Amino acid sequence: MAEDLYQKGIKKIQELTASDDENPTGFMDIGEGFKDIAPDLSKYVVEFAFGEIYSRPGLDNKQKVLTTITALVAQGKPQIEMHIKTGLTVGLKPEEIVGCIMHLIPYTGFPSVLNALKVAQEVFAEQGVSVPASDD
Amino acid sequence: MAEDLYQKGIKKIQELTASDDENPTGFMDIGEGFKDIAPDLSKYVVEFAFGEIYSRPGLDNKQKVLTTITALVAQGKPQIEMHIKTGLTVGLKPEEIVGCIMHLIPYTGFPSVLNALKVAQEVFAEQGVSVPASDD
Amino acid sequence: MAEDLYQKGIKKIQELTASDDENPTGFMDIGEGFKDIAPDLSKYVVEFAFGEIYSRPGLDNKQKVLTTITALVAQGKPQIEMHIKTGLTVGLKPEEIVGCIMHLIPYTGFPSVLNALKVAQEVFAEQGVSVPASDD
Amino acid sequence: MAEDLYQKGIKKIQELTASDDENPTGFMDIGEGFKDIAPDLSKYVVEFAFGEIYSRPGLDNKQKVLTTITALVAQGKPQIEMHIKTGLTVGLKPEEIVGCIMHLIPYTGFPSVLNALKVAQEVFAEQGVSVPASDD
Amino acid sequence: MAEDLYQKGIKKIQELTASDDENPTGFMDIGEGFKDIAPDLSKYVVEFAFGEIYSRPGLDNKQKVLTTITALVAQGKPQIEMHIKTGLTVGLKPEEIVGCIMHLIPYTGFPSVLNALKVAQEVFAEQGVSVPASDD
Amino acid sequence: MAEDLYQKGIKKIQELTASDDENPTGFMDIGEGFKDIAPDLSKYVVEFAFGEIYSRPGLDNKQKVLTTITALVAQGKPQIEMHIKTGLTVGLKPEEIVGCIMHLIPYTGFPSVLNALKVAQEVFAEQGVSVPASDD
Repeated sequence: MAEDLYQKGIKKIQELTASDDENPTGFMDIGEGFKDIAPDLSKYVVEFAFGEIYSRPGLDNKQKVLTTITALVAQGKPQIEMHIKTGLTVGLKPEEIVGCIMHLIPYTGFPSVLNALKVAQEVFAEQGVSVPASDD
Repeated sequence: MAEDLYQKGIKKIQELTASDDENPTGFMDIGEGFKDIAPDLSKYVVEFAFGEIYSRPGLDNKQKVLTTITALVAQGKPQIEMHIKTGLTVGLKPEEIVGCIMHLIPYTGFPSVLNALKVAQEVFAEQGVSVPASDD
Repeated sequence: MAEDLYQKGIKKIQELTASDDENPTGFMDIGEGFKDIAPDLSKYVVEFAFGEIYSRPGLDNKQKVLTTITALVAQGKPQIEMHIKTGLTVGLKPEEIVGCIMHLIPYTGFPSVLNALKVAQEVFAEQGVSVPASDD
Repeated sequence: MAEDLYQKGIKKIQELTASDDENPTGFMDIGEGFKDIAPDLSKYVVEFAFGEIYSRPGLDNKQKVLTTITALVAQGKPQIEMHIKTGLTVGLKPEEIVGCIMHLIPYTGFPSVLNALKVAQEVFAEQGVSVPASDD
Repeated sequence: MAEDLYQKGIKKIQELTASDDENPTGFMDIGEGFKDIAPDLSKYVVEFAFGEIYSRPGLDNKQKVLTTITALVAQGKPQIEMHIKTGLTVGLKPEEIVGCIMHLIPYTGFPSVLNALKVAQEVFAEQGVSVPASDD
Repeated sequence: MAEDLYQKGIKKIQELTASDDENPTGFMDIGEGFKDIAPDLSKYVVEFAFGEIYSRPGLDNKQKVLTTITALVAQGKPQIEMHIKTGLTVGLKPEEIVGCIMHLIPYTGFPSVLNALKVAQEVFAEQGVSVPASDD
């Protein structure tokens, strides 16, 4: 039932944002700000993106967010900020997020990577997390 | 030393392709076919892409290949074929590779995903691997 | 109900492909060739892409296909072929399809347009339709 | 004659912007701000983009603007704002503009669509137009 | 006069393709193959692309082709083949064409560069030109 | 030796930014602002991008910057600002920079070109350079 799919999507969003039942979508932008012009948008975001796709088997949440961040770096989309936050929430370590962005240098070139690191740096500062020094 | 960096790159390529010392770059295209017009290319591929970037800490090999596949799906590049192979070699399960491609539907749209699944399907058939049925 | 959404998607595909109940998806590629590796894909295509998005109010079928073709030209995707066919099926005139592709010159540049016209020309030849001479 | 082509382009811009002869290019950015560094630019915009391409037969003005908006959403270009305005001017209904943007979800993914809806929402607010509730 | 602009475009194409008056457009694809569906296309290519843009002051022909090749590599367009040929015709040395493609590694990543080098290599082989060894 | 490669990269950056030994990287963003999260980034920028790629034979500095600017216009990246500055530093005339951007109209469409000209205009104003009137 569609109602169930919506609930399934909300539950997945709660996992990704560590949100409680009072503010079930947490910091996730599900498009509710567009109720006046596209009232069906948030339904598609919750049901399809989160209820269906983010709820598929195959990858765990960390892998799903890593995949999301990579796609957004490759496309230069501002939504990367929100998904760096979901990454930290599901337990990606800051060095994994940075590792993913840095790994893209040979595939997207330096400018995309520099632009994405800027966003990561701001989110890390805001959340008080840091990348540990590596011995490598 | 640069010589060491080249060796470090070759060693990483051997991890990714399960190749032996007789054919150290295995199925990886390091650009050796361009020796006549760009003799320095394979050095950059081996030293920079593999000796530096693929050898960074932060992500494990499975995560690095997942990131690579995602970038190539988002860009529609034919190199996705080679990196689905590296994925299988480093131990990504077929359902993880498919999971990564399918996860991109809300970010790149359906056509990019359909085109990438076609390549995955061909590589899986060639290598005799299959995606197990899910109970989900 | 999800069953209904699937039926709604199939009905929309039938409109777009003029297909009958024996071959309800007609020439539309709904991803059924990927049943072995991504058995849920065709469900997303039918339910989400066609049952939800293509079934939204706001645009008529001709406008929806025009929008689809434009996106595929801008992205250089091979799926343009299939959607030139849906365009002809829903009643877009060949000169509207060409008009749409030609209109993109100032937005995507000439190469994207030349590549798309090649596909349109092949589909028109196959279907025996032609663009009437204009007095303009 | 080139002079005629320029006039033809201006006339088309007047249709698209509902501008009068005192301010013939209305809200359209024809690149006149670049007279100091590229004095020929506005000539190309007026003559080629509007005098030639926007003046082709095949599509009506509404279809041309729908095509333009789609291309700009797919590319993430800020010029979408100006063309949502030309859309309203030539008689596209707000729900057609939103319908076009929403239709792109399966082709460009959600982030491009969310970014474009934000711009549409701002233009609609500025011009006091709204999307009627749908019974669908 | 438009007739003059067409002649100006043809003259520029003759410079770029070293073609004679019997076959004035040489190996350049000006879209004449689309006379049946878009009879005005070749006029736009000749008059606008070559009569206007390629005839602008500011850059010499070698710089113009270098710019063209770069754009086509960044976009992954097949038209790069034709413009590697125009490059050789206007006097770009093979090492300049390769130098341009290789220079893009930090901006577009390796896959775009590998794909473009393949095309360059084929054109060079066909025309019997080679890249001299460098002492660098 | 890697130390040498770093010095080679710094020397190339000094050519591109006319910087002195006290501030050897001048206005070039080599990613030093990311020392906290990606301490190895600036090494890759200096050694690989400038020590290797910008130090290749084949193109002179003016050609290399022209190629860089073109790639950044095609991709819509903000780094175009910095490279318009390197262009002026290595001796590209303002009309060559504008010529390169304008030449892209038939390949990237007008919006990319308008967005890039805006940046060029701001850099030219800041540096007090102007494009001479052409007799063409």
